[in-house]
Amino acid sequence: MREEMVMAGDTTITVIGNLTDDPELRFTPSGAAVAKFRVASTPRFMDRASGEWKDGEPLFLSCTVWRQAAEHVAESLQRGTRVIVSGRLRQRSYETREGEKRTVIELEVDEIGPSLRYATAKVQKMSRSGGGGGGFGGGGGQGGGGNFDDPWASAAPAPSRSGSGGGNFDDEPPF
Amino acid sequence: MREEMVMAGDTTITVIGNLTDDPELRFTPSGAAVAKFRVASTPRFMDRASGEWKDGEPLFLSCTVWRQAAEHVAESLQRGTRVIVSGRLRQRSYETREGEKRTVIELEVDEIGPSLRYATAKVQKMSRSGGGGGGFGGGGGQGGGGNFDDPWASAAPAPSRSGSGGGNFDDEPPF
Amino acid sequence: MREEMVMAGDTTITVIGNLTDDPELRFTPSGAAVAKFRVASTPRFMDRASGEWKDGEPLFLSCTVWRQAAEHVAESLQRGTRVIVSGRLRQRSYETREGEKRTVIELEVDEIGPSLRYATAKVQKMSRSGGGGGGFGGGGGQGGGGNFDDPWASAAPAPSRSGSGGGNFDDEPPF
Amino acid sequence: MREEMVMAGDTTITVIGNLTDDPELRFTPSGAAVAKFRVASTPRFMDRASGEWKDGEPLFLSCTVWRQAAEHVAESLQRGTRVIVSGRLRQRSYETREGEKRTVIELEVDEIGPSLRYATAKVQKMSRSGGGGGGFGGGGGQGGGGNFDDPWASAAPAPSRSGSGGGNFDDEPPF
Repeated sequence: MREEMVMAGDTTITVIGNLTDDPELRFTPSGAAVAKFRVASTPRFMDRASGEWKDGEPLFLSCTVWRQAAEHVAESLQRGTRVIVSGRLRQRSYETREGEKRTVIELEVDEIGPSLRYATAKVQKMSRSGGGGGGFGGGGGQGGGGNFDDPWASAAPAPSRSGSGGGNFDDEPPF
Repeated sequence: MREEMVMAGDTTITVIGNLTDDPELRFTPSGAAVAKFRVASTPRFMDRASGEWKDGEPLFLSCTVWRQAAEHVAESLQRGTRVIVSGRLRQRSYETREGEKRTVIELEVDEIGPSLRYATAKVQKMSRSGGGGGGFGGGGGQGGGGNFDDPWASAAPAPSRSGSGGGNFDDEPPF
Repeated sequence: MREEMVMAGDTTITVIGNLTDDPELRFTPSGAAVAKFRVASTPRFMDRASGEWKDGEPLFLSCTVWRQAAEHVAESLQRGTRVIVSGRLRQRSYETREGEKRTVIELEVDEIGPSLRYATAKVQKMSRSGGGGGGFGGGGGQGGGGNFDDPWASAAPAPSRSGSGGGNFDDEPPF
Repeated sequence: MREEMVMAGDTTITVIGNLTDDPELRFTPSGAAVAKFRVASTPRFMDRASGEWKDGEPLFLSCTVWRQAAEHVAESLQRGTRVIVSGRLRQRSYETREGEKRTVIELEVDEIGPSLRYATAKVQKMSRSGGGGGGFGGGGGQGGGGNFDDPWASAAPAPSRSGSGGGNFDDEPPF
């Protein structure tokens, strides 16, 4: 499993927007939960002609969240939920099937929650699981090593969404 | 009632921490909801001797949130809840009873939500009330004028917490 | 020329890193200066085996800065300069020559300066030119309209770098 | 001398504003440079009556920067210079002469530079001094311990500003 890392000099950012889909939850072979989702953040600008606010071009950011928070995200948020996300920008390079190299910028989530601007929330505190290394900002840190299990690395079909379980994935790839 | 303002050049900030008390909800004479609360954010540092993370000095920030979001905050959050808060730093000067001038730095909240790091949340979307609206970042903006109703301006005793109502405050001061 | 716009709800970010090349300065047909450059920001992580800090994967961000600041950037910064950049993330879509649609995330710069961590700077205040106005945060704002002059829109070869001039571009495309 | 610390969960912030005075440079008994200064950040708001931008209430933040960067700041910046400052909010408590307890929020600077919005800068790279530990974000980290030398702790008169020297302060308090 990927190790907890102490990082410095990361580019941190806070994004406010709406989930474009339900979060997708997976587990690494060693049982670590990880959830992915995309946030659409739409700025607004004042239209001078009409004197009214209008929507600008949305920004779409792919987000990854690990461990206990990943399970909480999968259980609490869904397509359309407005969220506040705080994390670190990461650049990831990959090759397309045609062998082209592409680079994308994504968000490694440190902290996320549903926005209370247009909604209320019933908050349920969960017991902190041992080890998970939680803690603060640095909690989700991950080096550039790439030597951790990436449950999205394979081209296998996505699993059905599940908010718990994963225990039986300890010894084999989940997807 | 205070007007919606278009602001630029604000000092924005995101704080992650825990509420030190239940939020306190009030209403201006014209019926606008406003909630106040304090967030304690505790950094951690690596203790070299023990090789373990230890708590550093917490940062305490007084926060103000307006309108619909204020009611959602009062209804959803309580003492101890871990939150993500995004807003703008504001400096406020006042005089003590002894006539001394003091200055404090506070947070005017744009967006807030319960953190899903150690908790789950059942999110309930509310209908957007007309007018108050406000939309995005600029929504909670407020100029330096100070010519809006400040429900905390008087020294009257705090009201009991209430998550709704306020309609009957339209014509008289609530506190 | 593109108009000054009042924006709200933008995703703001501060990046610290080094210029990968000299900034490239251009002018729109109406004479507005605009500079482009790329910043590489390299986080560091603590290597547990050696107990030393090591470089992580760098993040590369393309940056755009407008008007007077664009000319100052072209005149003051160069390949390798360590900078602090503050601005708003923007998503831009374009088509490759093969007709493929691509999307990139870029930074619309609000404020930039050379970092004093490893350098000193002799600062020379310039008179504020009329019109350019801009002012604060919102200064560089730009809606999603896309109806402004984009000096990078054409596939023409890049011009040689110039820190001033531009006056003679008023009536024709510079590139 | 205060030690370099690895921190997590700090509340980071970027402030854009103008120095209210020349930076004040001091040295700890062990020879570490530290500079203090104050930044005034003035937001602007759109005045509906006139349709023009007007200044809002400024925010004043006391800033501290350490080591090599402190010397560069003292040498490069002065009263009035517009800067971009990136760092971590810190709360500090102290007692007045009358025995009253006060709390202030200050900025521990990680990175600072002169803004190029209204100025140009001639950047001069300095050799990285050994040890100083520089590095990134975490570079200026400091725990809550308080067991480091604080050159502002005494009530002694401030020294004249000097951009270098300090070597002879190794064994005695500078102020």
